[in-house]
Amino acid sequence: MTDHEKSELGGLTKNRMETLTDGVFAIAMTLMVFNIHIPQLEGAAVAGLSHQLLLLWSSFFIYGVTFAVLAIFWIGHHSHFYFVHHIDRNSIWINMTFLLFITTFPFSAALLGAYPGQRVAVICYGVNLSLAALLLYCHLSYATGRGNLIGPKKDDVGRRLAKQRLLACPLLCCVSIVLSFFHPLLASMLYLVIPVMYIIPGRVDRYFADRLEGRAAG
Amino acid sequence: MTDHEKSELGGLTKNRMETLTDGVFAIAMTLMVFNIHIPQLEGAAVAGLSHQLLLLWSSFFIYGVTFAVLAIFWIGHHSHFYFVHHIDRNSIWINMTFLLFITTFPFSAALLGAYPGQRVAVICYGVNLSLAALLLYCHLSYATGRGNLIGPKKDDVGRRLAKQRLLACPLLCCVSIVLSFFHPLLASMLYLVIPVMYIIPGRVDRYFADRLEGRAAG
Amino acid sequence: MTDHEKSELGGLTKNRMETLTDGVFAIAMTLMVFNIHIPQLEGAAVAGLSHQLLLLWSSFFIYGVTFAVLAIFWIGHHSHFYFVHHIDRNSIWINMTFLLFITTFPFSAALLGAYPGQRVAVICYGVNLSLAALLLYCHLSYATGRGNLIGPKKDDVGRRLAKQRLLACPLLCCVSIVLSFFHPLLASMLYLVIPVMYIIPGRVDRYFADRLEGRAAG
Amino acid sequence: MTDHEKSELGGLTKNRMETLTDGVFAIAMTLMVFNIHIPQLEGAAVAGLSHQLLLLWSSFFIYGVTFAVLAIFWIGHHSHFYFVHHIDRNSIWINMTFLLFITTFPFSAALLGAYPGQRVAVICYGVNLSLAALLLYCHLSYATGRGNLIGPKKDDVGRRLAKQRLLACPLLCCVSIVLSFFHPLLASMLYLVIPVMYIIPGRVDRYFADRLEGRAAG
Repeated sequence: MTDHEKSELGGLTKNRMETLTDGVFAIAMTLMVFNIHIPQLEGAAVAGLSHQLLLLWSSFFIYGVTFAVLAIFWIGHHSHFYFVHHIDRNSIWINMTFLLFITTFPFSAALLGAYPGQRVAVICYGVNLSLAALLLYCHLSYATGRGNLIGPKKDDVGRRLAKQRLLACPLLCCVSIVLSFFHPLLASMLYLVIPVMYIIPGRVDRYFADRLEGRAAG
Repeated sequence: MTDHEKSELGGLTKNRMETLTDGVFAIAMTLMVFNIHIPQLEGAAVAGLSHQLLLLWSSFFIYGVTFAVLAIFWIGHHSHFYFVHHIDRNSIWINMTFLLFITTFPFSAALLGAYPGQRVAVICYGVNLSLAALLLYCHLSYATGRGNLIGPKKDDVGRRLAKQRLLACPLLCCVSIVLSFFHPLLASMLYLVIPVMYIIPGRVDRYFADRLEGRAAG
Repeated sequence: MTDHEKSELGGLTKNRMETLTDGVFAIAMTLMVFNIHIPQLEGAAVAGLSHQLLLLWSSFFIYGVTFAVLAIFWIGHHSHFYFVHHIDRNSIWINMTFLLFITTFPFSAALLGAYPGQRVAVICYGVNLSLAALLLYCHLSYATGRGNLIGPKKDDVGRRLAKQRLLACPLLCCVSIVLSFFHPLLASMLYLVIPVMYIIPGRVDRYFADRLEGRAAG
Repeated sequence: MTDHEKSELGGLTKNRMETLTDGVFAIAMTLMVFNIHIPQLEGAAVAGLSHQLLLLWSSFFIYGVTFAVLAIFWIGHHSHFYFVHHIDRNSIWINMTFLLFITTFPFSAALLGAYPGQRVAVICYGVNLSLAALLLYCHLSYATGRGNLIGPKKDDVGRRLAKQRLLACPLLCCVSIVLSFFHPLLASMLYLVIPVMYIIPGRVDRYFADRLEGRAAG
């Protein structure tokens, strides 16, 4: 029996899981903006609309950062799932828990956007971000290890580099949480480093690019 | 004429129904968090943000439970639909009613999260949960019985075990509803048993796992 | 050049349009419940929660009716698109306008749910419903007529019966709007007839069922 | 190695990107209506419901315009992606930034709907619209130029015409922004020109229609 049949017998294919994941990401990314409320002004107060909009700067800043963070997780999830050959019960529940912490982003982003200078908001955001990254790490470990969900495309060097890159996120969150005890606003701003760090191609990206060149040449 | 052609003639394929179902689940799962409102504090009151967030514990607890419940229903729906060969008019409307009670979860979850100690909230949640489970049961019965929507993959033992497992949910809801007349808060907490019960592999899961082993060995 | 190539040259396939349509329907169906707000009670007032929930009866009634109406439109759209072979510019814009009036349902349903006894709410809902039905009728006419979007599966009797059935909806809306000048609440309730009318199989459904039998026998 | 394999090696296919894009568009299009709030009236004030609804005219006007604008972007994106053969890292991030400015439409549309006579609202809307159009232009340039993402279907005349048509949108936004310094309400209304302009077939549409005729004749 092939691995593909194995997956099908359980009745849930990798494909299904990807569809649900895509849906959850699309919704979380689109809906965060609904947490930024339009100023309700009446009469003469309408003249102060520009000023009121400027007060929303922190919400827009955190919105942009969180959108980029979700895009990074989405890309990471799909790059990883591309190598996944079939899924099992454990894999589904790790993935569902990962999705749970994706759906809480609109809450923690809105909290940090509204209170960028409050330590508790910085901590909530950092914990949410770390948990999402750790669950993806956990799925990567399970899929390449005990779960044995990767087909013949397995690649030890690529896996190790991907894991290292994933751990950078919770590490930076720890720094931000510690910093929030001294300067919460600066700690909020520090989260901007995460999208910047992941948008710049890392060692794992160069590794796969090199392999690609190699094959193209070969 | 094959069953597949039969399904296509009606113009609605099983595939389409799955896409709509996936969309509804992804949205319900993602949007529940929008019912947990960020505390609106101003001036000196902002210092009390941590305390205000702790007051949301019941909302977050019910959110987690409901997310897991929706994940369970989604897995159950797809495991079942995997065996479905084609759909008909009755099947579509049973499924649509099932989806109706999936879309009401954000309401009943928000109600129970806001009033975990109120009997009426416990009852609403229990009724919602039971109706969703009974409609899935109803589709399972119809598909494997009168509707004859299952192809050659039919399996009587698996069907019986799946039905038994599905009925555990409304039974537990009844216990919770009765308990709510004596201790509503405890009754709310009892709903946590449902995800725990279904995440642990049951007899039907072991049955299919064993069959899988058998085939793999054979 | 085949019709399929024709469709592909334009760069937009029928498939794409169906994906967007499914997404819009899934969201509209799931999100309407967010317009039913949970009563905000504090202190001793919490005891009146059951009573406050009962006051929401009209919102839940209209919610159920609208969910069924959207399900009917979704089924109708897909049954129709099953016969569509390719799409063109006009077809896309008729379909987009149809989707526009699907997205306004959450608004008109919430309006009627909040003010079931107000004539203007009955009229808004009826106009919305009629416009959606007329746009689907319009697409059906265009696709089977001037647009020539139907492949070899064309069927004149089926088309005529489908058109007749579609027109029943705006007719009933007219009755309801006229009635709203005398008894708005009764006019609101009349909208319940629409799901009932369409859930019961009509002549077009029997026609296709008979053809199906014929082919199965032949 | 073919271009298709190239794309697959990176683990993210063009197909995936389209699914996320479709999801984001479906949600943005459906959810804008949730920013139009139903008037909350009690007791005798309910009689003024019609009047209160009429006051929402600007919100509905901007809603309709924005729905059409999103439909145009969706069609444009898919027409363009139809010619795209594979995607790369840069392409993904240009596309993600494009999606970011699609998700901000519900905010800027709600702002302009609420304050159609305020210059800052006209400017926000115009900037949002221009950025979305420029990012699509940017992807088109990258894909047909340095990125070399277009397969053998490349067509220089079509590309040039598509680019010209895309630039019309930010140009008109500039006119509207300048006008907003003299007559903000008129400037708001000017945005209606955009859907009108793009719904009428342009030179690029005629070009592709002609090529289609040519091939059909040939």
